[in-house]
Amino acid sequence: MTRVLVLNGPNLNLLAAREAEVYGTTTLSDIEADLQVAAADMGVEVRCLQSNHEGALIDAIHAAREDCDGIVINPAAYTHTSVAIRDALLAAGLPAVEIHLSNVAKRESFRQRSLVSDVVVGTIGGFGPFGYRLALAALRHHLTGER
Amino acid sequence: MTRVLVLNGPNLNLLAAREAEVYGTTTLSDIEADLQVAAADMGVEVRCLQSNHEGALIDAIHAAREDCDGIVINPAAYTHTSVAIRDALLAAGLPAVEIHLSNVAKRESFRQRSLVSDVVVGTIGGFGPFGYRLALAALRHHLTGER
Amino acid sequence: MTRVLVLNGPNLNLLAAREAEVYGTTTLSDIEADLQVAAADMGVEVRCLQSNHEGALIDAIHAAREDCDGIVINPAAYTHTSVAIRDALLAAGLPAVEIHLSNVAKRESFRQRSLVSDVVVGTIGGFGPFGYRLALAALRHHLTGER
Amino acid sequence: MTRVLVLNGPNLNLLAAREAEVYGTTTLSDIEADLQVAAADMGVEVRCLQSNHEGALIDAIHAAREDCDGIVINPAAYTHTSVAIRDALLAAGLPAVEIHLSNVAKRESFRQRSLVSDVVVGTIGGFGPFGYRLALAALRHHLTGER
Amino acid sequence: MTRVLVLNGPNLNLLAAREAEVYGTTTLSDIEADLQVAAADMGVEVRCLQSNHEGALIDAIHAAREDCDGIVINPAAYTHTSVAIRDALLAAGLPAVEIHLSNVAKRESFRQRSLVSDVVVGTIGGFGPFGYRLALAALRHHLTGER
Amino acid sequence: MTRVLVLNGPNLNLLAAREAEVYGTTTLSDIEADLQVAAADMGVEVRCLQSNHEGALIDAIHAAREDCDGIVINPAAYTHTSVAIRDALLAAGLPAVEIHLSNVAKRESFRQRSLVSDVVVGTIGGFGPFGYRLALAALRHHLTGER
Amino acid sequence: MTRVLVLNGPNLNLLAAREAEVYGTTTLSDIEADLQVAAADMGVEVRCLQSNHEGALIDAIHAAREDCDGIVINPAAYTHTSVAIRDALLAAGLPAVEIHLSNVAKRESFRQRSLVSDVVVGTIGGFGPFGYRLALAALRHHLTGER
Amino acid sequence: MTRVLVLNGPNLNLLAAREAEVYGTTTLSDIEADLQVAAADMGVEVRCLQSNHEGALIDAIHAAREDCDGIVINPAAYTHTSVAIRDALLAAGLPAVEIHLSNVAKRESFRQRSLVSDVVVGTIGGFGPFGYRLALAALRHHLTGER
Amino acid sequence: MTRVLVLNGPNLNLLAAREAEVYGTTTLSDIEADLQVAAADMGVEVRCLQSNHEGALIDAIHAAREDCDGIVINPAAYTHTSVAIRDALLAAGLPAVEIHLSNVAKRESFRQRSLVSDVVVGTIGGFGPFGYRLALAALRHHLTGER
Amino acid sequence: MTRVLVLNGPNLNLLAAREAEVYGTTTLSDIEADLQVAAADMGVEVRCLQSNHEGALIDAIHAAREDCDGIVINPAAYTHTSVAIRDALLAAGLPAVEIHLSNVAKRESFRQRSLVSDVVVGTIGGFGPFGYRLALAALRHHLTGER
Amino acid sequence: MTRVLVLNGPNLNLLAAREAEVYGTTTLSDIEADLQVAAADMGVEVRCLQSNHEGALIDAIHAAREDCDGIVINPAAYTHTSVAIRDALLAAGLPAVEIHLSNVAKRESFRQRSLVSDVVVGTIGGFGPFGYRLALAALRHHLTGER
Amino acid sequence: MTRVLVLNGPNLNLLAAREAEVYGTTTLSDIEADLQVAAADMGVEVRCLQSNHEGALIDAIHAAREDCDGIVINPAAYTHTSVAIRDALLAAGLPAVEIHLSNVAKRESFRQRSLVSDVVVGTIGGFGPFGYRLALAALRHHLTGER
Repeated sequence: MTRVLVLNGPNLNLLAAREAEVYGTTTLSDIEADLQVAAADMGVEVRCLQSNHEGALIDAIHAAREDCDGIVINPAAYTHTSVAIRDALLAAGLPAVEIHLSNVAKRESFRQRSLVSDVVVGTIGGFGPFGYRLALAALRHHLTGER
Repeated sequence: MTRVLVLNGPNLNLLAAREAEVYGTTTLSDIEADLQVAAADMGVEVRCLQSNHEGALIDAIHAAREDCDGIVINPAAYTHTSVAIRDALLAAGLPAVEIHLSNVAKRESFRQRSLVSDVVVGTIGGFGPFGYRLALAALRHHLTGER
Repeated sequence: MTRVLVLNGPNLNLLAAREAEVYGTTTLSDIEADLQVAAADMGVEVRCLQSNHEGALIDAIHAAREDCDGIVINPAAYTHTSVAIRDALLAAGLPAVEIHLSNVAKRESFRQRSLVSDVVVGTIGGFGPFGYRLALAALRHHLTGER
Repeated sequence: MTRVLVLNGPNLNLLAAREAEVYGTTTLSDIEADLQVAAADMGVEVRCLQSNHEGALIDAIHAAREDCDGIVINPAAYTHTSVAIRDALLAAGLPAVEIHLSNVAKRESFRQRSLVSDVVVGTIGGFGPFGYRLALAALRHHLTGER
Repeated sequence: MTRVLVLNGPNLNLLAAREAEVYGTTTLSDIEADLQVAAADMGVEVRCLQSNHEGALIDAIHAAREDCDGIVINPAAYTHTSVAIRDALLAAGLPAVEIHLSNVAKRESFRQRSLVSDVVVGTIGGFGPFGYRLALAALRHHLTGER
Repeated sequence: MTRVLVLNGPNLNLLAAREAEVYGTTTLSDIEADLQVAAADMGVEVRCLQSNHEGALIDAIHAAREDCDGIVINPAAYTHTSVAIRDALLAAGLPAVEIHLSNVAKRESFRQRSLVSDVVVGTIGGFGPFGYRLALAALRHHLTGER
Repeated sequence: MTRVLVLNGPNLNLLAAREAEVYGTTTLSDIEADLQVAAADMGVEVRCLQSNHEGALIDAIHAAREDCDGIVINPAAYTHTSVAIRDALLAAGLPAVEIHLSNVAKRESFRQRSLVSDVVVGTIGGFGPFGYRLALAALRHHLTGER
Repeated sequence: MTRVLVLNGPNLNLLAAREAEVYGTTTLSDIEADLQVAAADMGVEVRCLQSNHEGALIDAIHAAREDCDGIVINPAAYTHTSVAIRDALLAAGLPAVEIHLSNVAKRESFRQRSLVSDVVVGTIGGFGPFGYRLALAALRHHLTGER
Repeated sequence: MTRVLVLNGPNLNLLAAREAEVYGTTTLSDIEADLQVAAADMGVEVRCLQSNHEGALIDAIHAAREDCDGIVINPAAYTHTSVAIRDALLAAGLPAVEIHLSNVAKRESFRQRSLVSDVVVGTIGGFGPFGYRLALAALRHHLTGER
Repeated sequence: MTRVLVLNGPNLNLLAAREAEVYGTTTLSDIEADLQVAAADMGVEVRCLQSNHEGALIDAIHAAREDCDGIVINPAAYTHTSVAIRDALLAAGLPAVEIHLSNVAKRESFRQRSLVSDVVVGTIGGFGPFGYRLALAALRHHLTGER
Repeated sequence: MTRVLVLNGPNLNLLAAREAEVYGTTTLSDIEADLQVAAADMGVEVRCLQSNHEGALIDAIHAAREDCDGIVINPAAYTHTSVAIRDALLAAGLPAVEIHLSNVAKRESFRQRSLVSDVVVGTIGGFGPFGYRLALAALRHHLTGER
Repeated sequence: MTRVLVLNGPNLNLLAAREAEVYGTTTLSDIEADLQVAAADMGVEVRCLQSNHEGALIDAIHAAREDCDGIVINPAAYTHTSVAIRDALLAAGLPAVEIHLSNVAKRESFRQRSLVSDVVVGTIGGFGPFGYRLALAALRHHLTGER
């Protein structure tokens, strides 16, 4: 069975924690639960982890070498600043898919550079929580060829 | 029924036309046929068009205002140079999804700038022909809320 | 009698086609009709043409050599990307006036560069449809000295 | 009756003072006299002022709040260096039109940046003294809707 | 009673730990004690925390949502590199004041960019330990209007 | 008794002169009166001056050498363009504090460079009129060591 | 027999159409006729095509895959702006030689970047119409090894 | 006896963990063991530490002030992004030597900037595991003058 | 008799006014007196003027057209920021020599750009007060050919 | 009879000296011999010189003024760094053709700038040793008009 | 026996020739003598050469192909400007080690770019004369595997 | 007696060798002869040297340490490219004056950077051959205080 680590970076634990009228009421737990449902449909096993610590994210990527076939990662703010997470993905050698909730092309100029994009299989961004489902499907297709 | 224009830009007509051992044997016709199958499953109606002419692509985007609910677009080389296609998407006012076959982050530096990304709903890239299915699903979700 | 080609670039055919409350209800036809009235007052003959195709705009500039004394041009999106239109203006050798409906200085940074400005007589921008009247008056003054 | 301040920046007092064969024989006084004629035709009241002092130009913009409806300004060299004049225009809150005698796009690279363009209604440049008439007409149209 | 989190970033724990003749003998403990005195005078309750870990600083900002009205933050080196702390401040939604001991404008060019400045109320820098008092007064004024 | 020159640059004389609902109703006179009150509390003597003329500001900085111990300066627009005011501060040799009403980090990119910051003791910005009190307190602390 | 497509881009149809005293009296037809003579000498078959339309040039490059062994291309203005023509050359997979009439190194800075140079065999520029003969000889040498 | 902290940054724990045929079979443990041998020869006492956490590396540098005379550091990915580690080295005040396994000049452009190089004694890079021996010898020479 | 305007820009009135042990005891008056002596030797008539006001310097350059043959100018801080003084020199049409007391190449990066250098005959810098004598000799040579 | 200096810059003496399987077996002597044959056919007299010394190349360009009508130059590495060779070509005043063996557009970014290109008649690159024949033909055409 | 060329670039012949109290009293001869001692210990044969002439250094690198196994090179000022020396190292094909006496990261910005670093095995800098011993050991290890 | 080395860089030997009607008829010999006359007047001993070889210029600067008190240097093209000559001036430790015949500020952008300016006493440029007299006077003043 295909096993996937779903890794979320800094501040994603606060999703929907305030200004529900603006950001919606989908929490990270909601996303992870929805993903478990989708994963079951796809015959994929999903393990979820969120951390605000760059080092903890690196440790998790390293650990995934033991028990995962691929990684879905939303590096959030670290997307733009962390060479270390990039190197962790390279070192772990697992296929990964980069996912962003918002369309980063619409945001500040320093968010236009991703240090991760060129070491992952591909990138999905701008589709909100639904993007995680797309990312999982994309990774499954990459690993198994299934559509 | 949700109607979607699938627009492909310059040189995509040559896909798989040479070096099959390198680029695979999936032609643009194959992609379009596969997309029709997927669209039927999703209850979406798909119309496909490819052109090497920037002006023809703009005309097609304008025309979509009459009979489409959204656009899946792979602007190919025009991604990086066409303010006119960007403006056409803005003027047409239809939600659009940007799709790339390859992971452009791995390619030449002049391909790192997309003039389209910040006027579409979201972007998908790096997953080969399968990306069109993801793009269609993403657009349907954006238009109907369905997963 | 002074003869002037009024050339409009990509997406200007959609003017006022949507969001009338935002962009007003002046269509490109309205502008061209108003310009015919003003031209009659000035004793100028005006021929109007719009295209979304860069090549068609170049062809029109070339053709103007046969039957026009000058050009009023709103290159729209091609202002910022078309060296070919710039070269066409240089090759045709007719005096031209560049006109923009909006004040481009208030817009995206990539719109701050005009490839056309330094090969025309002068530039007018920010005054909406009325700017075409100003452009025509400016070109007439350049050609005939009349105020 | 519409009242307009026509403000000219540094060195414009020397216009035509030397090299008449090159720059023409139109002095700033000539321009201002011609503008009075045109203004009378348009039913506009014009007050003219020139200074080489950045501070004096700012003071004049401030004072215009008392007795003017809009400003025609040729900031000359200060176009490219004066954030203070920009801020004065913003603070005064009067609609303004930027005018340049020459086509600045043909000149030194440091003249390509205008600190004023994005806080005025629009810009006119390259048409010599006649440009002041165009600027006045543009401002009147902006204030009254008259053509 | 107004409650304020005073957050200090990496290496500030070493303040005054060496070269007392150069950097003075004020330790971080001294600053925090002095701030408690000033806070008492202002009727403000202050909680202090220092960490060298970016993730721990983010966690602390998140936690402040439960029991604080605002944040005084000296992000130290993370000022220039941490998009994650910036996002944490945005996500927490508490008013914050940025404080620096030294005048960073006198230091290396990479210290000239702050990723935090445009998401806080305001910034104070260059006044040494006394700056913390100013920052606290500024935050109180922002929260209560008191001078 | 500590004597301080409070110097305000271009356009600050217009503060609150329009759009009270947006910018508040605090005029420069109000700020100066409030500062006199605060100065009296601190045992500081304050002299206030505003000018739109760069040269007049330089003259005032020079004159301060005769009768002041320090300067609180809000150079406004000249912050970003005046090497001459920077040099005046260096030549006068008096300690100075830079103050801005708004948080300039939230504004246009050309406002991100201050030519003054690295020749003053420190900078305070973003706290509105209250910032002048903070600046005065900061300067007093620098001059006398008092808190 | 070696077959070569000679492709000329925008505005080259106007060559020598005006200012004969400046640009000479060699028209594009003259160049093509001279090239037929030279081609006959070399035992090469030449087919010539000029277009102002980027899309038409791309179509022609694609079509050359059917009946040509190589391409001599003067992309004119599109040299500096067309990623699509670059991609067409890559997709077609035919060896190509880039030729320019003028020495572009002596012209505007935006002409210093060629998007085509690094995907062709080599480049020849600055030798006027004679350059086409050199380009044909170079391409023949590349294809056949003949000198 | 000279005591040296050997500090290794993120991902170096994975050295040789995969693709042995590519990266060799030298693990970090092997390097540390080899260094103990060399250190014994040099009469130096070595303590080794690796972490993926930026904060933990900073803590370790701080702690070295208590019991070490100098530091050999391979900051790995943090070389290019961590102002905080740079500041920690400055704050600790111990002489340090920067070491890299690979020749970073051959790698991505963002790896060309080291935030650490100008605060260490010197840098050694490109010699693989053997570089640690060189770094230790260099630091010993710096501390003791011995060759 | 050759007549020369010697123009000094902002802050030069403070020369030697403080820190005599550092900057020497040569005041601007001393320089001007010394220059009168040298001018007498050279058979040149010198008129000296200093101002902190950009506008006043421009006025003076304009006025020089009436009674001077050339200008020796030390624009001080305005060297780097004043397009208006540059334009004044161009408009006045008098040969000018640029002089700086210090070697600006040794100073801040924003002092490396002179807006005046390319519109004067030549530049002299780094020789302290003696540079004025050199500048006068250079200007005399330019005007009269005398050595 | 037309006389041409063929000048080769640094490291070209090593051509084919190693890795024959990679770079081919054509030495610089082979190229020069082949060029003598071609020159004889064209009725041109060729003198060849190679040096690794920038100064020696300059001396040779100077000397060519005595006995040559033009220069074919491959400045190799000095193409990108030598203003002095550029100036020598300008000072000598002989028409020159720049030739490169490889297609420099495919190489490192610092090789994209040629300091020579805009002072020669034209440039030829990418055609290997055969390029010298093309360069000679181009120069002969420039000097004599012969094809 | 391993043979190594030790090559020193411009101005290194003046080492210690002046300001002994600042730069120490180690001359280049001292360094070379010390290196002979170390080389003897390592069983390496060393040949030393210094030149101020770029061409002479290139000639020496070429010559080393005959009788050396590797090169230790301190290109001094040519590090930052010589593409020709870089190309010589590439053409010679011998493994090389780059060495600098000072820590260039602490010096002028134009010294931060090395044109040599990415074509050598590795780089050592900042350790003074002792660095040559390290460089020799590194090169020996690279050539023989010995520690 | 003060002894001065006058050093001229590449291509200055060709001065006036061609196009006398354009560049004048002053040769380098004329300049050197004129300088001997001026030097005699000033009681200075002048030794002149010109070379096209960067290394030869460095050797000459080194040699000047033996028998000169200062250097007048026109590095010509090497001004913009030679870190080695800069380092030679620093290593020699003799005061130097930089002189240019033309006003480099009016020339190509790559000539705007001087690598020598910030290590010399001062710079003189734009005054033609007369500039050498000024440079000699400036250097004498620097060395002896004489005017």
